[in-house]
Amino acid sequence: MPSDQVLVIGGGPAGLEAARGVAELGTRAVLVEERDHLGGTPVFERYAALTHGFQDAEEVMNRMIQAVVSHPNVEVRLRSRVVSCEGSVGCFRVGIASTEDGAEPTALEAGAIIVATGFQHFDPGRETQIYGYYEYPDVITLADAEAMLKAKRFVRPSTGLPPERVCFIQCVGSRDRQIGNEFCSKVCCGIASKQAIEIRQQVPGCKVYIFYIDMRMYGYWENEIYWPAQEQYKVNYIKGIATEVLRKGDRLLVRGEDTTLGRPLEIPMDVVILSVGMEPSKGTRRIAQVLGLKQNKYGFIEVPHEGVDPVATSAPGIFVAGAAAGPKDLDDTLSMAGAAAARAVAAIRRVVASAAP
Amino acid sequence: MPSDQVLVIGGGPAGLEAARGVAELGTRAVLVEERDHLGGTPVFERYAALTHGFQDAEEVMNRMIQAVVSHPNVEVRLRSRVVSCEGSVGCFRVGIASTEDGAEPTALEAGAIIVATGFQHFDPGRETQIYGYYEYPDVITLADAEAMLKAKRFVRPSTGLPPERVCFIQCVGSRDRQIGNEFCSKVCCGIASKQAIEIRQQVPGCKVYIFYIDMRMYGYWENEIYWPAQEQYKVNYIKGIATEVLRKGDRLLVRGEDTTLGRPLEIPMDVVILSVGMEPSKGTRRIAQVLGLKQNKYGFIEVPHEGVDPVATSAPGIFVAGAAAGPKDLDDTLSMAGAAAARAVAAIRRVVASAAP
Repeated sequence: MPSDQVLVIGGGPAGLEAARGVAELGTRAVLVEERDHLGGTPVFERYAALTHGFQDAEEVMNRMIQAVVSHPNVEVRLRSRVVSCEGSVGCFRVGIASTEDGAEPTALEAGAIIVATGFQHFDPGRETQIYGYYEYPDVITLADAEAMLKAKRFVRPSTGLPPERVCFIQCVGSRDRQIGNEFCSKVCCGIASKQAIEIRQQVPGCKVYIFYIDMRMYGYWENEIYWPAQEQYKVNYIKGIATEVLRKGDRLLVRGEDTTLGRPLEIPMDVVILSVGMEPSKGTRRIAQVLGLKQNKYGFIEVPHEGVDPVATSAPGIFVAGAAAGPKDLDDTLSMAGAAAARAVAAIRRVVASAAP
Repeated sequence: MPSDQVLVIGGGPAGLEAARGVAELGTRAVLVEERDHLGGTPVFERYAALTHGFQDAEEVMNRMIQAVVSHPNVEVRLRSRVVSCEGSVGCFRVGIASTEDGAEPTALEAGAIIVATGFQHFDPGRETQIYGYYEYPDVITLADAEAMLKAKRFVRPSTGLPPERVCFIQCVGSRDRQIGNEFCSKVCCGIASKQAIEIRQQVPGCKVYIFYIDMRMYGYWENEIYWPAQEQYKVNYIKGIATEVLRKGDRLLVRGEDTTLGRPLEIPMDVVILSVGMEPSKGTRRIAQVLGLKQNKYGFIEVPHEGVDPVATSAPGIFVAGAAAGPKDLDDTLSMAGAAAARAVAAIRRVVASAAP
């Protein structure tokens, strides 16, 4: 007996938009989220403004959450985790366990499944000790900076005072064969540039530098962020490689090479922000196992027909949206979520039609 | 009386995928295309392999076309053009004219509309005379190269013989304030690198150079194209600016600056390929007027809530998919098309539900 509801796994932007899309098509969606709140990484990591439109992340996410929780076709299950799955398109039987107690998992039937379990930030202390992330309090990540910018209190963590010089180091955990992440994380150039603008807005006297390999400001990110960052906000972009972060007096010293000028760099900084890339979240790695989905060599959900069918996984009836499939920006994520909603509902329609007497 | 069908304007990848998405949701789609064939730019410009998966473009497009023309819920109207539109979401009344005769337009009702009218390549002779596109037969564009690669006959146009040295010049018509296109066209780095690999496969003795500002190989383009291009296919990437193309004997001479080495460039070439960017197609500019859609400063369809709602236009019930909204890659285009299909069908559902007695 086919099920006419869609299971959406993950309550971040991809999962919220997918659940809303399914519900707006008149189909019931059950959204399962491990945390005790919806909103995914933008809420959990306390994002400030979104890239590229500079909208307030909390406002946007609250609107998305409200649209989902108020929709009569959506049921949200927080503190819940998918722990088993059998069956196939039209008739998946899924076990859902509480993250809080050891009670027996409850059973759920779904005609199709959308995986929206997202990414996690690369841990810059894990294999990249050269930047001293665990050693110096003033070496932080994009996510740490985001939270300070949201609080409108961008300071040197070691002193609590506004910094005079801040730099970003790009491609930490990306484009790096040594740590096994050859891919580009796609969004870090845009996010660093957006944060550079916000720092200049909040701490106008602060000088801001970005050390980069290539500035990947594709599409409208170029005219909407990169040009204003340079011209209006005087952010200093330096094509170069930072090889080392040291302590010098009460400041940090960034060593490396300016590859355009072809000379060594040695610049004192108050705050160093590591532009950490994307890796599959724990939830993404786990759900791939539970659902029996192929993963690519980086652990993201494999999309077998990438470039031609961007939301199909290796399993019929199971679709993927957002950064669970690899590095994605918010536009990618929301478009994929809408497409996955359409595909999931269409898959159920097909099974129901073929099962009709 | 609301209409329960969706009008899709444009028969390229975005329009085909949108029409299929609508049809698979059980809703009727009418796809209107000006040309006498479906397939859009990949077919019209005779693309070889697609970026980034290297699938054969003709095969992929034929599959997409077949899925649409064989679907009982889709009606395709070739050689047809939308010339008028009134009404609003749920009840658009559209006039469709033949491109072949002066017969009176026929009327069509649609509950929602998806605009998928795409882009056109920047004309490199228009304002960028420094590259001699109209002067030298061996100066060609990405699209010209694509057609030669598809025919498996990559030659110097002036001699018909295989070239020994080929270069790409990136950002022709993009990232350029002088011509008014400050945006990045997003796909040219990937397409040039893909073509560089194909040239090295088809003409193994040929040296290939790419002159670039930033290599924008975001996400998996980095590991799937950029690394193999450098390591396996020995493509020479030169961060530099080409300022001039001249004739020297029976060859071309590219002048500029290698910005990494900080020294002038002067390299003889057999073929120079201009990586021309995206501009709105004539159809995109025209349909914006006909439908009363806001356009951005570049003439693309404006997406008022970009980054938060990537397929909504300024008009309720009218959605956009693909490069009609600005530079997009094929993943973007197909995801947007799926999302637009879901939104269009949901918009009709809402109107029908509220009109029910």
